[in-house]
Amino acid sequence: MKGWTRKDLLGLNELSVEELRLVLDTARAYKGVGERSLKKVPALRGRTMVNFFVEPSTRTRTSFELAAMRLSADVVNIEATASSLQKGETLKDTALNLEALHADIIVLRHSSAGASQFLAERLKSSIINAGDGAHEHPTQGLLDVFTIQEKCGKIEGLNVAIVGDILFSRVARSNIYALCKLGANVTLVGPATLVPKAFEKLGVRVVHRIDDILETTDVVNLLRIQHERQRKEYFPGLGEYISLFGLTKARAERLKPKCLIMHPGPINRGVEIDSDVADGVSSVILEQVTNGLAVRMAVLHLCAGGVGFSS
Amino acid sequence: MKGWTRKDLLGLNELSVEELRLVLDTARAYKGVGERSLKKVPALRGRTMVNFFVEPSTRTRTSFELAAMRLSADVVNIEATASSLQKGETLKDTALNLEALHADIIVLRHSSAGASQFLAERLKSSIINAGDGAHEHPTQGLLDVFTIQEKCGKIEGLNVAIVGDILFSRVARSNIYALCKLGANVTLVGPATLVPKAFEKLGVRVVHRIDDILETTDVVNLLRIQHERQRKEYFPGLGEYISLFGLTKARAERLKPKCLIMHPGPINRGVEIDSDVADGVSSVILEQVTNGLAVRMAVLHLCAGGVGFSS
Amino acid sequence: MKGWTRKDLLGLNELSVEELRLVLDTARAYKGVGERSLKKVPALRGRTMVNFFVEPSTRTRTSFELAAMRLSADVVNIEATASSLQKGETLKDTALNLEALHADIIVLRHSSAGASQFLAERLKSSIINAGDGAHEHPTQGLLDVFTIQEKCGKIEGLNVAIVGDILFSRVARSNIYALCKLGANVTLVGPATLVPKAFEKLGVRVVHRIDDILETTDVVNLLRIQHERQRKEYFPGLGEYISLFGLTKARAERLKPKCLIMHPGPINRGVEIDSDVADGVSSVILEQVTNGLAVRMAVLHLCAGGVGFSS
Repeated sequence: MKGWTRKDLLGLNELSVEELRLVLDTARAYKGVGERSLKKVPALRGRTMVNFFVEPSTRTRTSFELAAMRLSADVVNIEATASSLQKGETLKDTALNLEALHADIIVLRHSSAGASQFLAERLKSSIINAGDGAHEHPTQGLLDVFTIQEKCGKIEGLNVAIVGDILFSRVARSNIYALCKLGANVTLVGPATLVPKAFEKLGVRVVHRIDDILETTDVVNLLRIQHERQRKEYFPGLGEYISLFGLTKARAERLKPKCLIMHPGPINRGVEIDSDVADGVSSVILEQVTNGLAVRMAVLHLCAGGVGFSS
Repeated sequence: MKGWTRKDLLGLNELSVEELRLVLDTARAYKGVGERSLKKVPALRGRTMVNFFVEPSTRTRTSFELAAMRLSADVVNIEATASSLQKGETLKDTALNLEALHADIIVLRHSSAGASQFLAERLKSSIINAGDGAHEHPTQGLLDVFTIQEKCGKIEGLNVAIVGDILFSRVARSNIYALCKLGANVTLVGPATLVPKAFEKLGVRVVHRIDDILETTDVVNLLRIQHERQRKEYFPGLGEYISLFGLTKARAERLKPKCLIMHPGPINRGVEIDSDVADGVSSVILEQVTNGLAVRMAVLHLCAGGVGFSS
Repeated sequence: MKGWTRKDLLGLNELSVEELRLVLDTARAYKGVGERSLKKVPALRGRTMVNFFVEPSTRTRTSFELAAMRLSADVVNIEATASSLQKGETLKDTALNLEALHADIIVLRHSSAGASQFLAERLKSSIINAGDGAHEHPTQGLLDVFTIQEKCGKIEGLNVAIVGDILFSRVARSNIYALCKLGANVTLVGPATLVPKAFEKLGVRVVHRIDDILETTDVVNLLRIQHERQRKEYFPGLGEYISLFGLTKARAERLKPKCLIMHPGPINRGVEIDSDVADGVSSVILEQVTNGLAVRMAVLHLCAGGVGFSS
C-alpha cells in the first residue's frame, strides 16, 4: 500500500482502485467525528481552504465548509459570477492570487469542464474539483460509492442503475468511473438523446426503459432533472419524462426489497422520484449527505498531505 | 428549579416564568464575556450552528453569528430566497439536509409564521426562531425584557407601552408574552387598523393616542415603521403617522424623567422617533443591541444542552 | 522609538516615518507566518473583526479576512449596498450597532472619501480604512512600499513612477504619501486630465509621457484602468491609452534590468500592461498580494493594541 501522493482531486477516472479504497477507508474513520458532540479534529489547524464557487451551489459549498471547519482549517468563501470570469486567463489570475495568499486548498466549482485541471497544473495549492461542467464531480461519486459500500457491504458484483440525463451529468461520469473500477455492473437508463449508445465504451450497459431494470438492480441512483436548464432538443416534456423514467410508487414496488434508492439532491419530488419513495425505508438520500461530509474531510486531509487510514 | 429542557426556542408564549428567568439570568452571566478583550468561552466548541435566513437580516444574522463564535461554535451562513423555497416541502428538505450535516443548531428566519415549529417537529437539531412572519421573534423579546430588567431593576408592575404596527409585528407579540408573564402592565399604542381591540384578550390595554400614555409609562418601545413594505390599506400616510404617533422632542419631554426609550432597530430617524431623542440619555437602543448578543449566547447554550445560570 | 499609539488606520498622510517603519517591520515578522504549514498565531484570539464593505471587493475583503483568521480573531463579513446606506447618519447607525456588538476592529470600504474618519471619530472600535472614495487605501500603499523595500533593500533615493488615473486613485495617493515620507523620488505619469500639474504640490514630479521615464525609473507602478467606470470626459479611448501609457513589451525592454513592475490588481492584460510583461521576471504583482496579507496582519495587530516589532 503506497498511500496518497496526489496534490489534487480532479476526477475519479484517474484514480487507482487502491486510491479509491484509501479515500473510502479514511472517510469511514472520519464519519465518526460528525456523530460526536465535539465535531472537530486538529488535522488541518492553521491551513487555509478557499471555497471558490464560480457556479453557485449552497449544498456543496456548505458541505466543504463544514468539512474544513471540522478539520480545524480556516475557510474563506468566494463566489464569482461567470460574467466576471469569462476567460481562462482571468480564472488563472484569480487563482494565482489565492495561491499568493497561501491558500493550501482551493475547492473549485466551475461551469467549464477542465477548469480544475487548468488550475491544478499551474498552482502549488491543492485543487479539489467540486464539479466542472459536465466532466466530473469526484466527491459526489465518492460519497455515492461510500454509501453503497456501507449499506451493501460491498461494491463488486452489484447491479447499479443510474437514471436520467447522463449526457450532461458530471455526477454520472464520476459514478461510472468509480463503480466500474470497484467492480460494479453499471447500467445507464434514460432516453436515447440523453444516454447515447456511445457510453458503452466506458464498460457500462445502456438501456432506454427503466422498466427493464427494476427487478434486477441492487442500487438505483436517480439524477436530478434540472428542467429549468434542460436543453429542449434533448429532453422530452416533464410529464413524458415522469411517465417513462420517474421512480413512481408502482415502479418502486417492483424493486428488490433491499434495493438502495439514491439521489444526489436536491430532489424534485414527483419528478425523478415519488415523494413517498424518497422518504421510504429504501431511500438513503440523507445518508448520502452525511457521507458527503465524511468523504470531503477525507479528501481534504489526504490532499493536504495527511496519511489517511487503510483497512 | 428544574432547568432548561427544551430543544428549541420557537416563541415566548410557551415559556414558563421560570424558563424566562433562566434565560435572563444566563444572559446576565454571558454579558460580561463581550466586555472582555478575549471575548470567547469554550461552551459550544465543536458544535455546528447554521444561520438559515430565508428572509434577509444582516443585523440579526450578525448577532447570532457572533454569539455562536464567542461560544466557540462553528458557524455557517445560508441565505435563501423565498423563490427557491416556496413550499414547506422544500423548506423541510433543505432542513433535513442541514440535519444530515449534523447541524446542532439551526437559526431560522422565515417569512411564514410557524416555519420554525414546522422544522422543530421534524428535526433532531435545535431550532431557534429568529423571526417567523408576524408570529414571534423570541430573542428580540428576551433582549427587550433583559434591557428593562437591567435598567429598571425589575419588570413587575412597570407600565410598558409598545407603539406602532402591532398587527403585523412579531417583535410586539414576543414582547407582549414575556412582559405579561413577568408582571408588567402592557399598553399597545397605534391606529385602530394596526392595533385592534382584539389584542386586549392577551391581557394588555389598547390605546389609539400616544399622548394618552406619555406621562404614565415607564418604558416606551417604538416599533420600526417599514414604510416601503407597509400595507396601504392599514397604514396612514407617513406624515400623519409621525404627527399622531412619532416620539417627537415635544412628546419626549412629557415622559417621566427615567422613562426608557427602546427600539428594535434599525431606527427611522424622524419617523418613529426624533433623531435627538434616539441619541438622548433615556434611549437604550444601543444597549439593546449589546444585550441581544448576550441573550443569544444564553439561548444557544441552553438549547444545546448547557445548564445555564440561575440567580 | 515610541511605538504605535493609534486606534485607527485612516491614511498614510498622517503617519510619521517612524510609524511607517514600525508597520513595515511588524509586517516583515508576520510574513513568515503565511509561509508555514500552521499559518496561525494567537495574537488576536477572542477579538472580533468586522469586514464592512459598502463597496464590493472580493480581493481586499479576502485578504483582511485571512489576516484576521491567521491572528486567531473572529471575523464577520457584512456587505452593504450604497442604496441601503445613502446617508452618513445611517452609516453611523450601522457602525454604532457594530460597536454595540463589541467589534474590536471594523475594516471599512466605502465609496465616500472620509467615511473611515467619520466613524473613527465616533466609535471606540478601531477603524481600518480599506479604501474610501478617491482619498486613501492605506494598506495598499503599505504593501507597495513593503514590496519595494523588500526587493530593492531600500526606498530612499529610488525613482518610482506611478502610471495611470492618478486623479481618482486612492491607491496613488496612499503610495505618494508613503513613498515621499520614506525618501523616494516619485513621478506621476498619465494624461494631463488625469494627472494635473497641481499634484506637484505634494512633492512629486508630473510627466505626461511614459516614454520619458522608462530608462531612469527603478519602480513602475501601473494603476488599474477601470474602463467600464472611467469618466469619459477625462479618459482617452482605450486604444489611445494603451498606445500612450500601456507597458508594452517594447517599452518594458527599455526599463532598467532590475526595475520592479508593480500593479495593485486585478490586472487588465493588454491594457495597462502586456500579458508577457505581467508574467515576466521583473513583475512582483503576486508578491504584492502575499505582502498585503502580512501588512494587514501587522496593521490589525498594532491597531488592536499589539506592541509590534521594530528592527
